[in-house]
Amino acid sequence: MADFESHLSSLGLSLPSVPTPVASYVPSARVGNLVFVSGQIPIRDGQLLATGSIPEQVSVEEAQGLARQCVLNGLAVLAKEVGSIDRLKRVVRVGCFVSCSPGFGDQPKVANGASDLLCEIFGEAGQHARAAIGSVALPLNVPVEIEFLFEVE
Amino acid sequence: MADFESHLSSLGLSLPSVPTPVASYVPSARVGNLVFVSGQIPIRDGQLLATGSIPEQVSVEEAQGLARQCVLNGLAVLAKEVGSIDRLKRVVRVGCFVSCSPGFGDQPKVANGASDLLCEIFGEAGQHARAAIGSVALPLNVPVEIEFLFEVE
Amino acid sequence: MADFESHLSSLGLSLPSVPTPVASYVPSARVGNLVFVSGQIPIRDGQLLATGSIPEQVSVEEAQGLARQCVLNGLAVLAKEVGSIDRLKRVVRVGCFVSCSPGFGDQPKVANGASDLLCEIFGEAGQHARAAIGSVALPLNVPVEIEFLFEVE
Repeated sequence: MADFESHLSSLGLSLPSVPTPVASYVPSARVGNLVFVSGQIPIRDGQLLATGSIPEQVSVEEAQGLARQCVLNGLAVLAKEVGSIDRLKRVVRVGCFVSCSPGFGDQPKVANGASDLLCEIFGEAGQHARAAIGSVALPLNVPVEIEFLFEVE
Repeated sequence: MADFESHLSSLGLSLPSVPTPVASYVPSARVGNLVFVSGQIPIRDGQLLATGSIPEQVSVEEAQGLARQCVLNGLAVLAKEVGSIDRLKRVVRVGCFVSCSPGFGDQPKVANGASDLLCEIFGEAGQHARAAIGSVALPLNVPVEIEFLFEVE
Repeated sequence: MADFESHLSSLGLSLPSVPTPVASYVPSARVGNLVFVSGQIPIRDGQLLATGSIPEQVSVEEAQGLARQCVLNGLAVLAKEVGSIDRLKRVVRVGCFVSCSPGFGDQPKVANGASDLLCEIFGEAGQHARAAIGSVALPLNVPVEIEFLFEVE
């Protein structure tokens, strides 16, 4: 097993409590060595960090921070599912949805907030396939929603 | 094998005929014990049940019913792929796309129409990871489209 | 192994160089016999083939051609990941996002550009599950983005 938990701490980061799903589903579903994590939104301690569309109400830079929060929430879900993020073998796929207006094309910059953090925490194991997509509106009017697919040992 | 088919009947529900894909793809693709089901739309007996955006043309409550139809269509596809929904081991992931306007945030309520029905039919095996996403427009202008990932025995 | 590479040539097609990801992720991630390919955009030789929304700035017919380019890019990624497209066992899933306006319902027609080409190249092995979704805006303002899930030997 890797020691990703310690590395997370050394980065000054910690896992939040697992956000309660907004609805009647579960935070994650495991099948074999794959863990599918439900779409995570930028919520911390039960509070939405921001609402609105990018870039009108929320800047790209702020949205990158929101994407980081989605990652921490997703990792908290992973840890709850398999016991520890140390059991991660690889981040497989990240689906990043960005609330935006027609003509906006910086979804990848927003998603980089998530991708960069995953690589920072997990190194090579953090490298993942990704789809970054614009959305007209997201749950609870959040600016960013991210779902994850992890491979575990 | 579970007896989900009987339970479905006892709920007063039945599987529709498998909707013909709108285009040049197939209703489902199986790889190992995973069945990927194409995006299902609220069509029944060849008729679209509704078109338009939520909540302007279609209410959240009506959309929940449309989401239930998407589930029944998806289960019909599953049954065709593996012979019976009794071979389901677990609903793994639900991707729910909701046609809506900027500022709309009740995608999870719409998606609950699907999630609740899956849990009603399959119990614990129906619990799934989920992403609920707003979309500016969906195929044939339907209000809801849902794709499914099932684990089978 | 199949001889899909030769068939591709006989169709007058060739694989492009692998497009550099727009951001901090990787073109594909393999887990077991599954290859997840990142969202591909219609770029060729480093040039975007089109930007804008369908059907206002880009026609459905033109968008089908863009979807074909996304397929070629995705297959180039697959070939880089596993050595050759001859190692493909099956195209499992295609997620096609189409930049469009409210009320547009021809996402399936656009996505057919991709689906038809996959079946043309791979025959039965090219048949896949699919979700076609409208998006308010896509990375770099492209009209089409497609992600792929392939099963390999």
